[in-house]
This record gives sequence, C-alpha cells and structure tokens, in this order.
Amino acid sequence: MSLDELNPPPPGHEQDGSDAGPPETSLDADDRLKPEFVSAVLERVEEGDSEGARALVEPLHPADIADLFELTPAEERRALAAAISDLLDADVFAEMNDWVREDLIDALDPHEVAEIAGELDTDDAVAIIEDMEEDDQRAVLRALAPDDRAAIEEALSYGEETAGRLMQRELIAVPEHWTVGDVLDYLRRNEDLTTDFWEIFVVDTGHKPIGACALSWILRTPRSIAISDVMKREQTLIPVDMDQEEVALRFQKYALISAAVVDGAGRLVGMITVDDVVHIIQEEAGEDILKLSGAGEGDINEPVLDSYKSRVRWLIANLGTALVAATIISLFEGTISKMVTLAALMPIVAGVGGNAGTQTMAVTVRALATNQLTQSNTWRTIRREIRVAMLNGVTVAAVIGVGVALVFSNHQLGAVIAAAMLANILIAGLAGVLIPLTLEKLDADPAVASSVFVTMMTDSMGFLVFLGLASASGLVR
Amino acid sequence: MSLDELNPPPPGHEQDGSDAGPPETSLDADDRLKPEFVSAVLERVEEGDSEGARALVEPLHPADIADLFELTPAEERRALAAAISDLLDADVFAEMNDWVREDLIDALDPHEVAEIAGELDTDDAVAIIEDMEEDDQRAVLRALAPDDRAAIEEALSYGEETAGRLMQRELIAVPEHWTVGDVLDYLRRNEDLTTDFWEIFVVDTGHKPIGACALSWILRTPRSIAISDVMKREQTLIPVDMDQEEVALRFQKYALISAAVVDGAGRLVGMITVDDVVHIIQEEAGEDILKLSGAGEGDINEPVLDSYKSRVRWLIANLGTALVAATIISLFEGTISKMVTLAALMPIVAGVGGNAGTQTMAVTVRALATNQLTQSNTWRTIRREIRVAMLNGVTVAAVIGVGVALVFSNHQLGAVIAAAMLANILIAGLAGVLIPLTLEKLDADPAVASSVFVTMMTDSMGFLVFLGLASASGLVR
Repeated sequence: MSLDELNPPPPGHEQDGSDAGPPETSLDADDRLKPEFVSAVLERVEEGDSEGARALVEPLHPADIADLFELTPAEERRALAAAISDLLDADVFAEMNDWVREDLIDALDPHEVAEIAGELDTDDAVAIIEDMEEDDQRAVLRALAPDDRAAIEEALSYGEETAGRLMQRELIAVPEHWTVGDVLDYLRRNEDLTTDFWEIFVVDTGHKPIGACALSWILRTPRSIAISDVMKREQTLIPVDMDQEEVALRFQKYALISAAVVDGAGRLVGMITVDDVVHIIQEEAGEDILKLSGAGEGDINEPVLDSYKSRVRWLIANLGTALVAATIISLFEGTISKMVTLAALMPIVAGVGGNAGTQTMAVTVRALATNQLTQSNTWRTIRREIRVAMLNGVTVAAVIGVGVALVFSNHQLGAVIAAAMLANILIAGLAGVLIPLTLEKLDADPAVASSVFVTMMTDSMGFLVFLGLASASGLVR
Repeated sequence: MSLDELNPPPPGHEQDGSDAGPPETSLDADDRLKPEFVSAVLERVEEGDSEGARALVEPLHPADIADLFELTPAEERRALAAAISDLLDADVFAEMNDWVREDLIDALDPHEVAEIAGELDTDDAVAIIEDMEEDDQRAVLRALAPDDRAAIEEALSYGEETAGRLMQRELIAVPEHWTVGDVLDYLRRNEDLTTDFWEIFVVDTGHKPIGACALSWILRTPRSIAISDVMKREQTLIPVDMDQEEVALRFQKYALISAAVVDGAGRLVGMITVDDVVHIIQEEAGEDILKLSGAGEGDINEPVLDSYKSRVRWLIANLGTALVAATIISLFEGTISKMVTLAALMPIVAGVGGNAGTQTMAVTVRALATNQLTQSNTWRTIRREIRVAMLNGVTVAAVIGVGVALVFSNHQLGAVIAAAMLANILIAGLAGVLIPLTLEKLDADPAVASSVFVTMMTDSMGFLVFLGLASASGLVR
C-alpha cells in the first residue's frame, strides 16, 4: 500500500461527504452493481469506446470493479480488462473471485503479474500467485524484486490454508526498552513502513513477541512512558502452521483486530489482520452447507466441468445408498404386491425421517464447527436431541396415523405407519447427532460425509420398519 | 472499557509471553476447554470449595469463562455463578451464548443487571437487555445511570438486527479545523474517552461525518498537519436502520475495521467496529444451512421445547409435500401391482434427483447471500446449472440404466429408469436454481423455503416420470 492514502484524493475523486462510496447511478440499494450500469460499460467496450468505459468505471471502489469483472460474461472479460487496464490495479485483483482472477491472470505475461504482485502486501500477492501453474509461478517469481520474491517464496513454503499463507510480513515491531515517544518518532521518520496496521508488537532481543499495543493506547499515552508499561502482555499468538479455520475461530473468540504470527521457535514472523480473516469466516461458515449437499466449492464462477466432477461423485455415492434402500424394499415385494397402497405410503416414512435427520445433522455440524459442542457436553447434546426427536416423532406419528386410518378406513394401517414414523424419526435424531460426532472423532470433516450416512439410515430404516411392521403385524396376509 | 487496560496486568496474571492465553492445563489443542478442567471446576463448586473453583477459573480469558458456563449443565450454572461471582463480569456476559446468558440474567435482580450493563459499551449492554421481558427490562433501565439509560433506550428504539442495535455510541469525533497535534492532546487529556476505537471521525459543524482517519495515519503524521489533510474523504457510511446482514456485507466487501453510523439527517450517531460484525458474518453465513434444513435457530443451548416448535412445523410441511408424492404414486397402483420391482426402484429416481436439486439449491442460496448472483448474471447462472445438470444426468442415467438392465435382464426397464433419471436431474437443476431466485424476487428469504419446494418437485416428478414412462412405454402390460 502506498503513501497516497495519507493525502486527500485528487479533485476528480472528490465526493460530497454526505454520500458513501461510488455515485448512486452504479449501485442499487443492496450495494450491488445495477444491471443497467454493467451493460452500459460493456456496450462501450464493445463499441471500442474505452474512454467512455473508463469514465464510468473510474469512480468505483476496487471491490466494485472486481464485482464488475465477476458480473461480466467470461468471453468479454479480457476485452473489458484491455479497455480499462489502468484501473485494473493490484487492489482490484485482491478483491476478485478466485476463478475470475485466474482467468484474467492467465492472459497476462509474467512481468505484468509480477508488477501487480509487487504492489500488494504479502498475503494478497500470495493469493494471486499460489493458484498459478508451476511454470508461470516460477516466471513471475523471477520477475519480482528480490525482497518481494523472498517474502512470497517463504509464504509459499507454508501449507495451503495455513496462517503462513494468510499473514503479511509488513508489520511494526519495536524493542521493549523504547518509550511511546521513540515509537512515534520511528513511525513518523520511516516513510516506507506499512500503513496497514492497528496494533504494534513489542519484541525481546530474540525477536520473540512479549506484548502488543493497540494504537489507541499509544495515542492516549504521554511520550515519556515506556512502551512496556502500555502494552498488553497476554496476547493470542498464532503459530505459522495453524489452519486458517482455526485462525478465524481465534479471531472471533477473542475479538481480535490483528495478531502476531510466530514460527516454531516463537519468533515473530508476520501479522494477520481481521480484514483478511473476515473472508475466511464467511467462507468457512458458508462452506458447510455446500459440503453437506455435496456441491464441492459451489462457486457460480467455477468452470462447468469442475462443478460436474465434484457433484457427480456425490450423486454416484448417493446412488449407492439408494440401492441399499431399493434392496430392502425388494425383500418385501411379496408384501407390497398384496397391498399396493404400502408402495405409495412408504416414501412418506422415509422422506420425513430424512428431513428430521437433516435438521439434527445441521445443528450438530454447526455446533462442532463453532467449537460449541465438545466432549464436556456431548452426552447432554445427545440426550437433548433424543428428547426433541421424541416430541417431533409423537406429533408427526399422530398426524399421519390418524390421517391414514381415516382416509383408508383402516385402523391397523394407521397404527403401522404411526409406529414406523415414530421409530424412524427417533433413528433420524440419533443418526443426525451420532454420525457427525463419530466422523469428528475419526478426524474426518463431519460436514462432508455426514449426509450420505444419515440419508442411508433414514431411507433404509424407514422402508425396513414400515414394510417389516406391515408384514409382521398381520396387516397383510 | 476501563483504563485498566492501559496498565500491565497485576503480577498474579503475568505470563511468560511466549505462550498465548490461559494456562495449558485448561485448553486443548483446538483452544476448547478440556473436559477434565470443566469437571474439576464443577466438582469444587459442588463441594462448596468456591476458593478452589475461583483459583482455577481466574486465569481464563472472559471468552473462555463464557464457554465454561455454556459447557456446564443448565442445572449447575447458577451454583457456578454464585461460586465465582466476582469473575463473572460484564465482559464474560458479552461473550456468552444468548440462551445461557438469558438463563443466568433471569436469576439476577435488576440492580445487578444494571451494574453489569453500565460497564459495557452500548452495543454489548443492548445485547444483554434486549431479550429480557418487558417488566424486567424497565426495572433494569430504571436502575441505570441517566446517561447509560438514555443511550440504551435510544438503541432499543431502533429495530432488532439493525445497525442502531449494533453500534456503540462511544467514539471519537473531531472538528475538521483541528491539527493532528490537537487530536493527540484531546485524546491524552480526556481520560474518560473510549479506548475501543481504530479510526477517528472528522465531522462538520452539523455533526455530519466528512472523513475518517485510521490511527496509523495519525501516528505517522507530524503534529502541525491539519486533520482534514490526513483523513480519507470517501468512507462507507452505515444508515442507522440498515439490516445487520447488509452491514456485515459492507464490512466484508470494503474490508472495514470500523464505520460511522448516521441517522436520517446524515448526522454521526454511532460507530460499528469489525469485532462486533465478525459474529454476525459467522452467524449469517452459518444460518443458511440451518434454515435450509428447517432447524430453526439450531442452537444446542436452545430449550428443547423451542427446538421442537420450530422443527415440527417444518416436518409437518414436509409431510404435506410427501403426501403429494404419495398421491402421485397411488395413481399408478395398477402399474405397480403388475410389476412390483417398480416400487423398489422408484425411490432411487426420486432420491438422487432430490440430491441433485439440493446441490444446485445450496450453490444458488450461497451466491444470493453473498451478493454474487445479481440480475446481471442470472441467465448465465441458469444456463450454467442446466449444463452441469445435463452432464450429471447423462452420467448417472447411464450408470443406473446399464446396471438395472443387467441385474433384471430387462433392457426396457433399464431404458425407462435411465430416461426418468435424466429427466429428474434436469428438473432438479432447474428447480434448484429457479426456486431460490423466485423467492428472492418475491422478497422472501430463499434459504428458508427453497428446500420444501425443491424436494416436492424432485419427489413428485421423479415418481411421475418413472412410473408414467413405465406405464406409457408398454413395459408393463
């Protein structure tokens, strides 16, 4: 980030102050680019009127320019990039959807990519480079300035989705014997320090962090006070190899704005700020729904073939569990042929059971993901879900039992479906809580595999209990 | 927040600095309280050894003390609160799960609640008071100091889940003619200002915000420079009645640390900081999975009866859609009675179709929630989902068609199930994208109602197409 931000924007950018962000004409009430605006820009690009396109796009925030590219059809993105190339800067790339960015970056030569990466903080530069193919990655790294190159190479040496990839190396660290005045002078005199920080870190002679100091505390303290008297000694340190989901949970739990990242020896190697974590919190929390449904990354910008590959695998697995259910039904073909109504009623038992299982599973998966469900309250949670299942089961069983008994004038059929429904909702509740818990215990991601197993249980058991009771109760002779 | 934070912690709290947070004995590798620790505390409480319990709990971070209460069985929470009452301060309540907090607050008298609320920033105080019953709320408000009372009453006058509830009124606003030096002097001299800020706001004579200034810029600028030359003029202003989900999206999109909240006349009335928004981002993103499954609030601390009420409603709705499917099957009872194998195979078509619909629906709901799917790319997204459905449909149809033809030595049966599967996966893809889009257009929450409609489509159409084809193709005579 450059020092431009220390100065007021140039006159062309000036705004009336009572209004937020870009001009009203481009954004709707929900802060999304209006379709008319997007098509106006693309029309000008198509007509070769780059000037006109630039005039429209220039007032936008980088995040909105990134959105503009996402909303542009894939085949027109490169023409748009060419038309407004001087507005397509590093900040815009940092805000862009991964797939869209990859597509645009592919069209650039390594020197252009290196120029963009050189302008960004380490974390954003790494985000752009990490998904490139190895040859292209090497070419970009060669084209970078030596410092930037070393910083990015080091970041790439940490595992994907770890704190090491997420952190920026640009931070403010000061020795413990300094005063507040020393810190102020240091910050004012060194123009090339980052401006993107909210806390400073105090380190010992071995560069190990011993405290952190919010900028508001420094601002409110006289120059003569020692920084070690202002800093907070307890701070949350992030190991460089910590998984990003874990990092996000710490930020959330302890309401952090920034945190020091330390290597295996406890030395300060970087800093993570909350604005980088916000994306991860959103992604990780939103991901569970996509994982549970087997929709892979579930990004609407993902290439069709990639979506197909991740989704079809899941559908085939689902086909397997459906075959188990079909096999169970086929064992009762004799029973069904004597009373075909059973075939019409059996999906009700399986379907409502499946739904009850999904409810419990969703609650359990979220509680595990947010660290709310731990060993201390496992048994309590299981008992709780059984109670809810019991209440749900009795209610739904009563409704369906009475309904079927009346419609078919067959009390015994009503009793059989009510008993099967109650049993299946109880099975669903147990499966919905025990399956995710077991997967978590086995160090598997409960969001990924739970729903296949839960559906298999509720389908198979639903058919088995209903048809089995119908057959054993003497309803069908 | 008090000025205590400006001083180093008392000697008893001191830590070795290379270690983060509470002692190793209380937390596991995932930063959750160990079950042994929880039971050790509760044992001491039960034995009446409050001293011992306090000694264990004292080193914990407020967020961990809050977790301790959540992990304690409901019937033992009040005894724990009594034993460690002096550690149960405002910060702990601010971190606590809503249900657990409500339960504890119910046991306190209004004066005790007022004392806790008085220590908190407005947003946290409001979070504690807003869920109380009206009588209790009035009693607490009466017991508050007049300033605090006015601030909280004003906050409560804004709608639930709006920016007005979320904001704190404690903020730093300075006039535009001040210099950096004036700002520093003001901050150093006024001890009772908040310490919880990351930016200061510059206001005109009508108290309207005209710029914002990150603390790092102030720290890096000489005293003589005018604040209006350092501040950034473009800033995201949050209207006081904006929905909290919208607030969270703005923070995320523009990578904000804090933002000014303005009233209808554009006057600065409060500030929202990112640490308050992080919880909302997490909740809102995680909520969709609970909504889609019909699990209500889906909190494991919710009372059983509340969970029952929200879930059973959904199961009854699901029973309704299952009845539609059952009615369709009953139309084909004649066909099934001639070939009972159809009854065993039909749930496969419906089930895999349902899964394909859930995948598309999850992707669409997430894209809508994150503002990625707008009018500009609606048609593109629909076409994309049809292409994915086509590929999935052909693959799954081929597998099941060939499999059934071989197992039953019946080519025609294989052809019928393959055609039905292809058709149902296409229907599922269309329903999965069109139903959430339609609900969004109608200003309904796509996450809440989509899955009932999608399941109804894939179940009913699955049975209809499969049994209809079996009957019409002459497979069954």
